[in-house]
Amino acid sequence: MKRHLISAADLTRDDAVLILDTAEELARVADRPIKKLPTLRGRTVVNLFFEDSTRTRISFEAAAKRLSADVINFSAKGSSVSKGESLKDTALTLEAMGADAVVIRHHDSGAPHRLATSGWIGGSVVNAGDGTHEHPTQALLDAFTMRRRLVGADTGLGRDLSGRRITIVGDVLHSRVARSNVHLLTTLGAEVTLVAPPTLVPVGVGAWPCEVSYDLDAVLGKSDAVMMLRVQRERMNAAFFPTEREYARRYGLDGDRMATMPEHAIVMHPGPMNRGMEITAEVADSARCTAVEQVANGVSIRMAVLYLLLSGAVPEEPAAGQTRTEESK
Amino acid sequence: MKRHLISAADLTRDDAVLILDTAEELARVADRPIKKLPTLRGRTVVNLFFEDSTRTRISFEAAAKRLSADVINFSAKGSSVSKGESLKDTALTLEAMGADAVVIRHHDSGAPHRLATSGWIGGSVVNAGDGTHEHPTQALLDAFTMRRRLVGADTGLGRDLSGRRITIVGDVLHSRVARSNVHLLTTLGAEVTLVAPPTLVPVGVGAWPCEVSYDLDAVLGKSDAVMMLRVQRERMNAAFFPTEREYARRYGLDGDRMATMPEHAIVMHPGPMNRGMEITAEVADSARCTAVEQVANGVSIRMAVLYLLLSGAVPEEPAAGQTRTEESK
Amino acid sequence: MKRHLISAADLTRDDAVLILDTAEELARVADRPIKKLPTLRGRTVVNLFFEDSTRTRISFEAAAKRLSADVINFSAKGSSVSKGESLKDTALTLEAMGADAVVIRHHDSGAPHRLATSGWIGGSVVNAGDGTHEHPTQALLDAFTMRRRLVGADTGLGRDLSGRRITIVGDVLHSRVARSNVHLLTTLGAEVTLVAPPTLVPVGVGAWPCEVSYDLDAVLGKSDAVMMLRVQRERMNAAFFPTEREYARRYGLDGDRMATMPEHAIVMHPGPMNRGMEITAEVADSARCTAVEQVANGVSIRMAVLYLLLSGAVPEEPAAGQTRTEESK
Repeated sequence: MKRHLISAADLTRDDAVLILDTAEELARVADRPIKKLPTLRGRTVVNLFFEDSTRTRISFEAAAKRLSADVINFSAKGSSVSKGESLKDTALTLEAMGADAVVIRHHDSGAPHRLATSGWIGGSVVNAGDGTHEHPTQALLDAFTMRRRLVGADTGLGRDLSGRRITIVGDVLHSRVARSNVHLLTTLGAEVTLVAPPTLVPVGVGAWPCEVSYDLDAVLGKSDAVMMLRVQRERMNAAFFPTEREYARRYGLDGDRMATMPEHAIVMHPGPMNRGMEITAEVADSARCTAVEQVANGVSIRMAVLYLLLSGAVPEEPAAGQTRTEESK
Repeated sequence: MKRHLISAADLTRDDAVLILDTAEELARVADRPIKKLPTLRGRTVVNLFFEDSTRTRISFEAAAKRLSADVINFSAKGSSVSKGESLKDTALTLEAMGADAVVIRHHDSGAPHRLATSGWIGGSVVNAGDGTHEHPTQALLDAFTMRRRLVGADTGLGRDLSGRRITIVGDVLHSRVARSNVHLLTTLGAEVTLVAPPTLVPVGVGAWPCEVSYDLDAVLGKSDAVMMLRVQRERMNAAFFPTEREYARRYGLDGDRMATMPEHAIVMHPGPMNRGMEITAEVADSARCTAVEQVANGVSIRMAVLYLLLSGAVPEEPAAGQTRTEESK
Repeated sequence: MKRHLISAADLTRDDAVLILDTAEELARVADRPIKKLPTLRGRTVVNLFFEDSTRTRISFEAAAKRLSADVINFSAKGSSVSKGESLKDTALTLEAMGADAVVIRHHDSGAPHRLATSGWIGGSVVNAGDGTHEHPTQALLDAFTMRRRLVGADTGLGRDLSGRRITIVGDVLHSRVARSNVHLLTTLGAEVTLVAPPTLVPVGVGAWPCEVSYDLDAVLGKSDAVMMLRVQRERMNAAFFPTEREYARRYGLDGDRMATMPEHAIVMHPGPMNRGMEITAEVADSARCTAVEQVANGVSIRMAVLYLLLSGAVPEEPAAGQTRTEESK
């Protein structure tokens, strides 16, 4: 595996299956009397969040602490970043403080990539969501959830999502979750169909390895998993939807629609759910909806990612010529 | 003991004495060379705060860390909660992340009860103050302070507050501290008198197991402890008090009034104190004022509560049909 | 060493060299497989920040965690402090919660001194920057960086900065960094020259143990280290500078000016840098600029300070008559 996790598109099938299998092993820690491994003791994980996202932040924090790492939360709000400090200076600061991994959430697509390729830091960079670009650990936890539900909890390199049919529904245009999932799911052998209002389909979608449909009802019957994206109310207006009810009527998942899915098929949602908007309360609370499992699986996946990136690995010297501990004489 | 601590009114006398005795044991940890017990290693305590309260939050944080638990702070401000996420979804998220205890502070009376009885979570819920309802750990630390000062530091089931006369003074109407104390103190055998301006006495107070008086001077001489509540300046206007000085004159505790208390009697305050308002600086800084001890005792009480709720206990499965680690196949 | 670190001016030469030598030892922890010492296990360090300063806060946090202390972050914003709680009540609260060290950042010059001399707390107070007064750990990390670069990494009481010529450039008037450095550097035997616009030189500077110059170019050639202070844009107007460019032209460091420095001389900056203002990007990114090393050295220095103040030391009883664990009977 590479030193960083920036994009689901970067992962080979073997990388991805290794992460899923490792997460499967690490999930067992939660069943032990002491739910903690000493693996990353003495390592420091910095959560560098330029956007608020309590859910993602505490998921990484819980994962790191379960591996005994120290966690430092760095919210860019109110920091010198807001006084105009550059990403570079922030990065050099974190590197100098000895961060072994920087988990970055940023409103700009590409910021984690810049951080990872700049030579500013010697540790690992993990993308926790950047602009409308990618959110790779979300895609990994989604894939983990699908594998458990649709294939089984056994591990091994043969265990991917070959032939499973996944439908992703909603505001694909603005969704880094959709983007990361399309890449990862196809890498794992699944067949992906996007369903979205025409105004919320990205322009270049023709080059993506997936189908596009505008008719939710037409694809539900042949889906093994249906992933409902969170709708941003303010973007519905921009998409020329007259009312929220109209959106829900055409692209929301309710009990009647769920009944047309195959019996084994699951409903997924990255959370937090807008009950009554993209998903009805009935569907959200049904046993087929995996939203809560996805959260639990998120901790296991993030443990696996941190474990694979940090454990045993000898941190590289950053390229910029600054060493971590001294530069004396 | 039950799995949650929602209300002082729920505690039996044996429960309450057990907590006080356990806190007495755990207070000794502060005297050890390494002021830490490994008891809750691998357990995760989440501080879920919908209201700012740095003092209460760091008291729970210090208590949990002294027992070697991992602590995750979740401030609802700026989180998806403020984007309309329901308490249910927040709860399911924390449960899925493996929270063993959720310490909740909420502006709505009843939110901790809802969290505990919903079946959303399998861990323990601790009420850290909800609306005008209850603040049970505050009442427990107050009782602990009174027992040490008025009865002695010995432990044992016979050691309660039988026959002690406690006076609670101030804005009882809006005070969850007063409410929790009335319940707990009477459970422990004390006799409670409330002293408040008529407009700041709750309507249903006749049903409470305590006396009510409007004359502070009349009760001071027969009080073993006088608890001064914090006054919210903005509520004084609503209570038709012409001036702060007028409030202080009628319901504040100054040196002259303190001199009319029995020699052994103590002055308590939950903090932070409004010096010059409900309490003069002279009284606040006197050796009879236990405000600072109450803070120290708060850490011991919260250690005891977390210890009793979490240690050794096998976490229950949440009722909602979601298991903590997997739901596969 | 004393129990607190309030001011660089309080440090004797032996104190200062002991801190530098200890930091040199502790810096080696970063090279170990597990970058952590158990020295302060069970101790609690509170970061009490009345001003936002993410960089300083996480530097202390990283230092404390590397020594296995528990860290509690207390931002005064949104706390009862902003509701009018006094510094005294905050201090008594932290003391009662068992804080072994309070790292305080405050907008008022003198607040850490008040905290340390008040008798309110029994632990150690570390000044992390107060108003325009002092920032002693910054001066220590600067001295540490200079000793490594200009003298060598060997330790021992003979290893100070005797005879080194240090130039500090910029807004000296408002700079606690400059103030702390002047004191510490002269204590360590260095010769300090301040260079600043006349309007940004403190009135009483004549009493300081240093030279003052208004001509940057005249002193560069005889400087072993040049420390560029961060310019606050809003203060440039107050100093009657017509434009930022004009400031940069007269007091900024660019490549041409750096070329007039002795070959071995270094450029320092406390960060974050205003590239293009007090320092050009060319200089900031050159191998002679130690800004990033300074950050790394900051963690080592703060480890040394916490180690020397807390390890082995038996905490004193606070003078105010409140003991940490009980006051019973």
